[in-house]
Amino acid sequence: MTENCLFCGIVTGTIPSEQIAETERAIAFMDINPATRGHLLVVTREHATDLRDSAPEDLIAATLLAQSLVGRVIERLGADGANLLSCIGPDAWQSVFHTHLHVIPRYKDDPLVLPWHPKPGDAEDIAATAVELR
Amino acid sequence: MTENCLFCGIVTGTIPSEQIAETERAIAFMDINPATRGHLLVVTREHATDLRDSAPEDLIAATLLAQSLVGRVIERLGADGANLLSCIGPDAWQSVFHTHLHVIPRYKDDPLVLPWHPKPGDAEDIAATAVELR
Repeated sequence: MTENCLFCGIVTGTIPSEQIAETERAIAFMDINPATRGHLLVVTREHATDLRDSAPEDLIAATLLAQSLVGRVIERLGADGANLLSCIGPDAWQSVFHTHLHVIPRYKDDPLVLPWHPKPGDAEDIAATAVELR
Repeated sequence: MTENCLFCGIVTGTIPSEQIAETERAIAFMDINPATRGHLLVVTREHATDLRDSAPEDLIAATLLAQSLVGRVIERLGADGANLLSCIGPDAWQSVFHTHLHVIPRYKDDPLVLPWHPKPGDAEDIAATAVELR
């Protein structure tokens, strides 16, 4: 754990999140600036700046949790697909420097383009979507 | 292996590619429609429509190969970062229905937006970049 790291704070619980799932080495929670409905983040419990620096077992854990959540957003939210995205470095749109994978549900004809322009989602909507995903 | 699958053809060698690396369960080769210089694809040897349907060991192999190639594009091509992207379903920009991960090198101030509009890269440039990456 690294002080002043947002995702370390979420992992330890000192910063609140709408957590969806957890395993020994990874946790998943709702993105508060969702690109689409149901946008999730899967982070390694162990701090690393980006996936280059993560131990294989941590990256594997995050990937397998993300794989299961791709299925879940399609089954539970009626998404028509999903993107799995990781950003390595500020020039690749990374803004929190702790290894994470985005699971972005996709909906037919949604207007998503990347990079999206993060803005806070409605907290009640996010909480309600979290209930569907747990 | 599935007939008429482009990536199965590349895996078996019946369709040529600029291959960069291979492991027991995954191979990496140059994207012929690169979003940026050095754009690579990592595919599972085993056919699956998308990562939801891949066995964990296949997805793990593809992910770990992609992890190593993220480091390689940064070290060898002077990329400033990279994106790892997987598209699950046509509504999420998937166009070849065989599990694959994009490794997209990023360069400071590059103009990338996703979805990019695939168009053939210069074959000689791609071959020269492949030499740098092998």
